[in-house]
Order: sequence, then C-alpha cells, then structure tokens
Amino acid sequence: MSRISVLGLGAMGAALAATLIRKGHSVTVWNRTPSRAEPLAGAGARIATNPAEAVAASDLTILCVVDYAAAGAVLAEAQEALRGRDLVNLTNGTPREAKKLAAWAEEKGAAYLDGGIMAIPPMIGETGALILYSGSDAVFERHKPSLDALAESRHLGGDAGLAALYDLALLSGMYGLFSGFLHAGALVASSGRRVGDFLPLLQPWLQAMSGTLPDLAGKIDSGKHSDTVVSNLAMQATALENIARASTEQGVAPDFIEPMLRLAALRIADGHGNDDISGVIETIRRKK
Amino acid sequence: MSRISVLGLGAMGAALAATLIRKGHSVTVWNRTPSRAEPLAGAGARIATNPAEAVAASDLTILCVVDYAAAGAVLAEAQEALRGRDLVNLTNGTPREAKKLAAWAEEKGAAYLDGGIMAIPPMIGETGALILYSGSDAVFERHKPSLDALAESRHLGGDAGLAALYDLALLSGMYGLFSGFLHAGALVASSGRRVGDFLPLLQPWLQAMSGTLPDLAGKIDSGKHSDTVVSNLAMQATALENIARASTEQGVAPDFIEPMLRLAALRIADGHGNDDISGVIETIRRKK
Ligand SMILES: NC(=O)c1ccc[n+]([C@@H]2O[C@H](COP(=O)([O-])OP(=O)(O)OC[C@H]3O[C@@H](n4cnc5c(N)ncnc54)[C@H](OP(=O)(O)O)[C@@H]3O)[C@@H](O)[C@H]2O)c1
Ligand SMILES: NC(=O)c1ccc[n+]([C@@H]2O[C@H](COP(=O)([O-])OP(=O)(O)OC[C@H]3O[C@@H](n4cnc5c(N)ncnc54)[C@H](OP(=O)(O)O)[C@@H]3O)[C@@H](O)[C@H]2O)c1
Repeated sequence: MSRISVLGLGAMGAALAATLIRKGHSVTVWNRTPSRAEPLAGAGARIATNPAEAVAASDLTILCVVDYAAAGAVLAEAQEALRGRDLVNLTNGTPREAKKLAAWAEEKGAAYLDGGIMAIPPMIGETGALILYSGSDAVFERHKPSLDALAESRHLGGDAGLAALYDLALLSGMYGLFSGFLHAGALVASSGRRVGDFLPLLQPWLQAMSGTLPDLAGKIDSGKHSDTVVSNLAMQATALENIARASTEQGVAPDFIEPMLRLAALRIADGHGNDDISGVIETIRRKK
Repeated sequence: MSRISVLGLGAMGAALAATLIRKGHSVTVWNRTPSRAEPLAGAGARIATNPAEAVAASDLTILCVVDYAAAGAVLAEAQEALRGRDLVNLTNGTPREAKKLAAWAEEKGAAYLDGGIMAIPPMIGETGALILYSGSDAVFERHKPSLDALAESRHLGGDAGLAALYDLALLSGMYGLFSGFLHAGALVASSGRRVGDFLPLLQPWLQAMSGTLPDLAGKIDSGKHSDTVVSNLAMQATALENIARASTEQGVAPDFIEPMLRLAALRIADGHGNDDISGVIETIRRKK
C-alpha cells in the first residue's frame, strides 16, 4: 500500500482521504482549518501541521482545495518539499490555470498530474465515479492503483489543461441540466404541486431527450444543421415563447430559459428557422 | 376502428396521422398548405378541402398546428361543424391559452381535451412516447384506445390548463439539457475535438447527475436548502466562474452559463453560500 498525503479536507478532500484510508493506504492529511482533520485522524490518518510536512511524508500528494488561488497558497508553503515528489491536483480550474501550475510545479522539481473529479463526494470509491487526468504520464502510471481506489481513472493526454477543459465541459452540461430542472421545478411548485412528485415524469423525459444528442452532435460536427430536421427551430422558438409567457403568468422569472429564447430568435432572424436547434451553437462560437 | 380527423400536417401532425392510418383507423386529414397532405393520401387518408369538412367527417378531431393563433384560425373555419364533436388539441401553448380555447370550444358545443406531446415525431406510436392530457374526462375515456395508438396516454385532471403546464415544465427541463449540451459542445469543439466523441463521457455523466435530482427536489419541497450539503453553493459558484473564464479563453460566449452564475452569486450575497444549489430556485420564484 502507498503513502499518500491529502491537502485540503473540504467535502471532497475529506471523501478522498477517507476512501484512501478505507482501502488500506497510509494517509497523511492537512487542512488550513485544522479541526476538519480530526474525524480523519480518528479513522487512522496522520495529521501534518503544515503543507510541507504533508508533502514530505509521502510519495504522492493529492491537492483538493476550492480554487487555484487556494492551491497556489498551499503549495507556496510546501515549495522546498516538492522536489522529487509526485503531485496530483484535483482542484477545479481552467485549462490555462492547470498549465501554469504544471509549469511551476515542474520548475520546483515535482512531477505534475492534473485531474477533474466527475463525481460528488458520496460517490468517491463507488462505481460510477470518474476522474479525468491529464499531464504527467509517469505520475499516472506510477499511482494508477491508488487513483483507481478513488474512481475510474482516465488519462486524456500529456497536455495538463485537457482534464480541466473536459471537466468544465461536463460541468456545463450539468449546470444546463440543473438550470432546466430548477425552472421546471419552479413552474410545478407554482401550481402548488411537489417537485418530488414531478420527477417520475421528468427523469424518463430527460433520458429520452438525451437520446437525441447523438443526432445533434452529428449536425454540429458536420456543420449541416438542416439535414433531416424533425423539430424545426421556428416551431421550437414558439414553444420557448410559450414557456416564457406561462412562466410570467405563474410568477416564475424567465432567467434560465432566456438565453435559448434569445439565441434561437437570433438564429431564426439569420434565416435558419427551418434548421435544427443544433445550429444555435453557431451563435456562441467565435466566428472563424 | 374509429374515424379520426387530423388538422395540421407539419412534422408532428403528419406523424400522428400516419400512425393512426398504420394502426388501422379511418383517417381524414387537412392542412393549410394542401401539398403536405399528399403523402398521407398515398397511405390511405381521405383529404378534406377545409377544416369544417374534416371535423364533420369524424367523431374525433385532433388538432396539431404550430401555435394557438394558428389553432384559433383553423377552428374559426370549422365552428359550425364542432357541435356534438370531440376535439383533442395537441398544439403547444400556455395553460391560459388552453383554458380559453376549452371554454370557446364548449360554447360551440364540442367536448374539449387538451394535450401535450412529450415525444418527437419519429417516436409517435413507439414505446417511450408519452402524451399528457387534461380537460374532458369523457373525451379521454371515449377515445383512449385510439389515443393509446399514438403514445402512452396520461390524463392529469379536469383543468384544461394542466397538461400545458406540465408540458412546458418538461420542455424547460429539456431546454436546460440542450443549453448545457450546446455550451459543452462548443467548449469541446473549440479544442478541435468532435462533439460526437465527447458523448460517451457526457451521457453517463448527465445520467449520474440526474441521480442527484431527488435530493434537490426534496430540499425544494421542504424549503430546507442547508441540510446535508455535499456540494456547497460557494464552491459551485467558483466552478461556474471557471467555466465562464475558460469559455472566454476558448472563444465561447458564456450566455448559457450566465444565469446560473448570476443567480448563484445573488444567493451567496444573501448569505446562502453554504446551502445547496437547490436554493437558487428561491431567486426565480415570486416572493410569497
Ligand atoms: N463537492 C463536490 O461536489 C465536488 C465535485 C467535484 C469536484 N469538486 C472540486 O473539489 C474542490 C474542493 O471542493 P469541496 O467540495 O471540498 O469544497 P469545500 O467543501 O468548500 O472545501 C474547500 C476547501 O478549500 C480549502 N481552502 C479554501 N481557501 C483556502 C486557502 N486560501 N488556503 C488553503 N485552503 C483553502 C478549505 O479549507 P478550510 O477548511 O480551511 O476553509 C477546504 O479544505 C473544488 O475545486 C471543487 O470544484 C467538488
Ligand atoms: N416536432 C416536434 O418535435 C414536436 C414535439 C412535441 C410537440 N410538438 C408540437 O406540435 C405542434 C406542431 O409542431 P410541428 O413540429 O408539426 O411544426 P411544423 O412542422 O413547423 O408545422 C407547423 C404546422 O402548423 C401549421 N400552421 C402554421 N400556421 C398556421 C395557420 N395560421 N393556419 C393554419 N395552419 C398553420 C402549418 O401549416 P402549413 O403546412 O400550411 O405551414 C403546419 O401544419 C407544435 O405546437 C409543437 O410545439 C412538436
């Protein structure tokens, strides 16, 4: 079993550390607010009093704090200890931030692997959890058995920014799902009904509509938004206007539905009313 | 088998008529632009030359045009023929529009059932398609076998506006899904990758995140957004800012992510940074 240090014991860092302990690794933890380390000490973790001590205690250090400002602050305290160590950073950030930190860590003599956690804390260590990695292949290969204890591990390539890009793309999809859910929930609740009772309708519907994504993806990849259209954009814009109008009548603010309504209208004004909704992507991409 | 008329032969009306013919019904069709009726005549439909003739030809008339302005125009031409007939309106609209048309139709002596089609045209007549109904129970009971030929049929209650409300709530969920998909797709495409190749990551991820909706729904229904939070809103707002920043770097406009970013920030400014994202719903509901 490996010696692994975990820096950052928020909801996610604590879940990572607890899972590694449970799977038999020798775990050292550190958190800015020391009280959050106590439950883990009870479970068998060693507590480090500062980041440098934690990095020095293990071959592999996993960093998981709220953002790159925090990540930078933590690592600055551990600079001297980083030489010759392996660092896996699971803090959410942009591709640019990941690449910048990778360069900094390598300058300090550490090997750097970036990662994006596609799971919520209770999923860590369970089937269904996925962590995307990019950056150092060597770190990935050396620690794959330990990383696999946390989630399915997928290495996307040597570019340290790739995991962040895919992570943020997946999160965009999730926030779209949540945006639609909150709007739908507000409409249902406005009629005095329980949102929980609406889920048996909503979940299979979303599942069915997910089934149309491959067709939309094919249109995006080929740039042909007018092939075999079964739900033309003009008709869909009318439905979007109905949602906006009904929302106002029900006392629900249209914020979550507004971008699609506005961008679809733009696209129609551009002469694409008979195209598929996939074409709306052209309104948010940089013109080539 | 029943005699059924279908008014409106766009993508959806044509799919409804074709399915009824295929399942052995005696079908009369009408469309404003007559050429769209021709393929159905080839399949065995009788073509009516105006809406009144179509309504008079059958016990049940199904109306499916783009919006209520079109529905009103079509029915105005058939007023005299409506007395004693059953009318099922599957045109998308608001609860208020549905209730107004129900009252008008009943004044003309027709029995009115409203419906919302939760399917795309190729799904009509196949498993997985669902049509929500509300309004006249009698119409629903009399024609249930015919309606079941189109999709699973669910009657929500006597209030003619109910099907429209649930339909628009489900569509809101779908447009959220599509908004997130288009943003994610634009990020992926901006790095030169195919959106189709990204789907094997996106679809299971959305499926997994759909699994968190019951927990969020419970928080909405109870109004307790701070119970057992594993992904606090402040942390999520940071991730949303990362998405917005990375999008700008990649040349993707942040429109689809902007409402969640803005409303989450409002909610945090209100002191709810440790709550769950379910609490964002309070920012779009009418204050009680
Ligand atoms: N929770 C999830 O559902 C989830 C899912 C996927 C990915 N993630 C990612 O995992 C990372 C951590 O999220 P989380 O849920 O654990 O957040 P969290 O519960 O809010 O915890 C935040 C962590 O960051 C630390 N921190 C913040 N500012 C710091 C600073 N200036 N210096 C040192 N430490 C600092 C906090 O330390 P203190 O205890 O001292 O405040 C705490 O350990 C984020 O990047 C998030 O995007 C989370
Ligand atoms: N397609 C889908 O994926 C889908 C899914 C669920 C629900 N729906 C709903 O089904 C309804 C029809 O959608 P669709 O996809 O069939 O739309 P579509 O393909 O755009 O067809 C529109 C239909 O409305 C007719 N129409 C428009 N204005 C009219 C007017 N002033 N008078 C008479 N007829 C008029 C058109 O007649 P012309 O041929 O003469 O233009 C055509 O038959 C909409 O309410 C839509 O929301 C559609």
